[in-house]
Amino acid sequence: MEMLAAVMRGTNQPLSIEKVELAAPKAGEVLVKVLATGVCHSDLNAMEDETTPVPTILGHEGAGIVVEVGPNVKTVKVGDKVALSWVPFCGTCEFCQTGQVNLCESAFGPMFAGTLLDGTSRLSQNGQGIYHNSLLSTFAEYTVVPEMSCVKMPEGMPMAQASLIGCGVATGYGAAVRAAQVKPGSTVAVFGIGGVGVNAIQGARIAGASRIIACDLKAQNLEIARKFGATDVVNVGEVDAAEALKELTGGFGVHYAIDCSGNTMAAQSAWKGTRKGGTTVVVGAFNPKKELALPAGGFHRVGKILKGSFYGDVHPFRDFQAIAQLYLDGKFQLDELVLDRIPLQDINRAVDSFHDPCCVNVGRTVVEFGGEAG
Amino acid sequence: MEMLAAVMRGTNQPLSIEKVELAAPKAGEVLVKVLATGVCHSDLNAMEDETTPVPTILGHEGAGIVVEVGPNVKTVKVGDKVALSWVPFCGTCEFCQTGQVNLCESAFGPMFAGTLLDGTSRLSQNGQGIYHNSLLSTFAEYTVVPEMSCVKMPEGMPMAQASLIGCGVATGYGAAVRAAQVKPGSTVAVFGIGGVGVNAIQGARIAGASRIIACDLKAQNLEIARKFGATDVVNVGEVDAAEALKELTGGFGVHYAIDCSGNTMAAQSAWKGTRKGGTTVVVGAFNPKKELALPAGGFHRVGKILKGSFYGDVHPFRDFQAIAQLYLDGKFQLDELVLDRIPLQDINRAVDSFHDPCCVNVGRTVVEFGGEAG
Repeated sequence: MEMLAAVMRGTNQPLSIEKVELAAPKAGEVLVKVLATGVCHSDLNAMEDETTPVPTILGHEGAGIVVEVGPNVKTVKVGDKVALSWVPFCGTCEFCQTGQVNLCESAFGPMFAGTLLDGTSRLSQNGQGIYHNSLLSTFAEYTVVPEMSCVKMPEGMPMAQASLIGCGVATGYGAAVRAAQVKPGSTVAVFGIGGVGVNAIQGARIAGASRIIACDLKAQNLEIARKFGATDVVNVGEVDAAEALKELTGGFGVHYAIDCSGNTMAAQSAWKGTRKGGTTVVVGAFNPKKELALPAGGFHRVGKILKGSFYGDVHPFRDFQAIAQLYLDGKFQLDELVLDRIPLQDINRAVDSFHDPCCVNVGRTVVEFGGEAG
Repeated sequence: MEMLAAVMRGTNQPLSIEKVELAAPKAGEVLVKVLATGVCHSDLNAMEDETTPVPTILGHEGAGIVVEVGPNVKTVKVGDKVALSWVPFCGTCEFCQTGQVNLCESAFGPMFAGTLLDGTSRLSQNGQGIYHNSLLSTFAEYTVVPEMSCVKMPEGMPMAQASLIGCGVATGYGAAVRAAQVKPGSTVAVFGIGGVGVNAIQGARIAGASRIIACDLKAQNLEIARKFGATDVVNVGEVDAAEALKELTGGFGVHYAIDCSGNTMAAQSAWKGTRKGGTTVVVGAFNPKKELALPAGGFHRVGKILKGSFYGDVHPFRDFQAIAQLYLDGKFQLDELVLDRIPLQDINRAVDSFHDPCCVNVGRTVVEFGGEAG
């Protein structure tokens, strides 16, 4: 079939709205009519990254309606409204079989190769292949994705809000609920208040944390953090964050710290600011040239846990549906994350907005298709 | 009462066998007739450490019989045979109340001060106070200890073997069973084959690990590791340990790595040698001047856990009894850890043996009192 898509043709070039060809779904694949897709800072990163294979169609935050299923698809059917996950899973490797689908062996090869799970593309133009991105490529009217990337949404779930679940929302929520396993009554620090951080705050809030301390360099971000449930804020540019966390918690430090900043110094502060036996979760991507250095003195004696977490340790089927239901029940804020709604033709405006120095990166501009996104 | 004890009078001096006075147990304290006590490398460290308060009576691996209990003692009675724990716990602080008695707030103050829990000493000589050590001071015929340091042993448990449970045995066993929570069928690497390492191997074996890989610099230690259950060995002086662990596990790395070496480089190798989602437990005490540096690239993506563990996360009541019963059932090797048995008068011989370059530090010389240690 033919459709409109925003095509990335080269590094540091605006996306180009073009007609492209989409082949039918193969076994285990689903054709989705995209109704809404968020524009993420990672899309800009890909546009600025010379290693991104081109031409490609970006977009990894999406929701839509199933219009066709390939052979052997069991979990969704035509007409289902779904949110999409950019971390597919095979269901058969050791990681999938032991509850760690976020670490599935099958995901990264195709992700870096720009293909679907079978190593091939469904996208083309005049017989010339176009690369997939994150196995989703939602900057298009339609997309073919792995079945395991489709999570059926509950009745009444609006698609713009649903489209945001699969990236920063899931990662932040999962960091608190799944990776840290925040317990009711506990204290939680969240470092780095962006699209992941505010949802880590929401996850901690829903898990019943008694105190949620937002840590960031920007006063503006700390104010936003309060709107999502932070009870206290620490400006890490003004005070020693670890000491501030101890002061706020009777000298002990927090039970859980979640680093969403991608900054090794922040992660170090997070670790230092947890109490004996406390847990620090790192969901941010560090600069690979750095090291995460922890003080060795008394390391064993304080009994602390440091945990890297990819995609917040979420299982999309379980957690995306939980988040959607929490939203419908008025317990999880997603409306506040939809900052603007634009048609596909205006997508470069959304990308450009990331260059605004006042850009906070907490919410998203959502591209809607055909006015059906609700 | 008067008794014989080995008294440390100054740094780098032999212990002196002297008559000292022991006061009656106060509330929550127990008078124990020591029947056996292991001599640990930590005792030598204390003798070489100028910050150790003197005069003091060392010894923190002990077993004996309860001969008197102070007011309010509920968990042991006169005549009970007990193994001693050098990490007392109050039962009331947040850590004790949430299952982390090994991190109890009450333990470290008295430990560093050389007193019992109430900040005073029961030991003296001619009216001059003598410091306790690790709240146990078992290099003596009798000792007064906190009730919560006494763990009743099952019927038939020999005291020499019981005396060793409370230090390296519990720490190693706990590191595998409690801190790492090794699962049946999993793969485990143990770095640093000493008094803790061989018991981490035993813990992993009892937890059902399918493959237990001992990692050490000394071929002699690796041979000993095999006797305690190691299925494979890696000489870390000859090969890159992390690469070797991956090779032995189909390219993935081990599910669990336990560092008992106290060496930050070994801990780094341990972390690198675990698979995605794997757990590294550090029970060794690092040099406080060092840092533990982990590669930042992809840290979040591999979803690994790093956990410091004090005393192997054991709960003495639960785990000491379990170890003793496993021994009596022929499933846990303790006889092999009793290398020699000597009277108190010969204790300096045991201390001196640590200076032997061939000393392996896996087993212990046990001091026995009155031939009752069984």
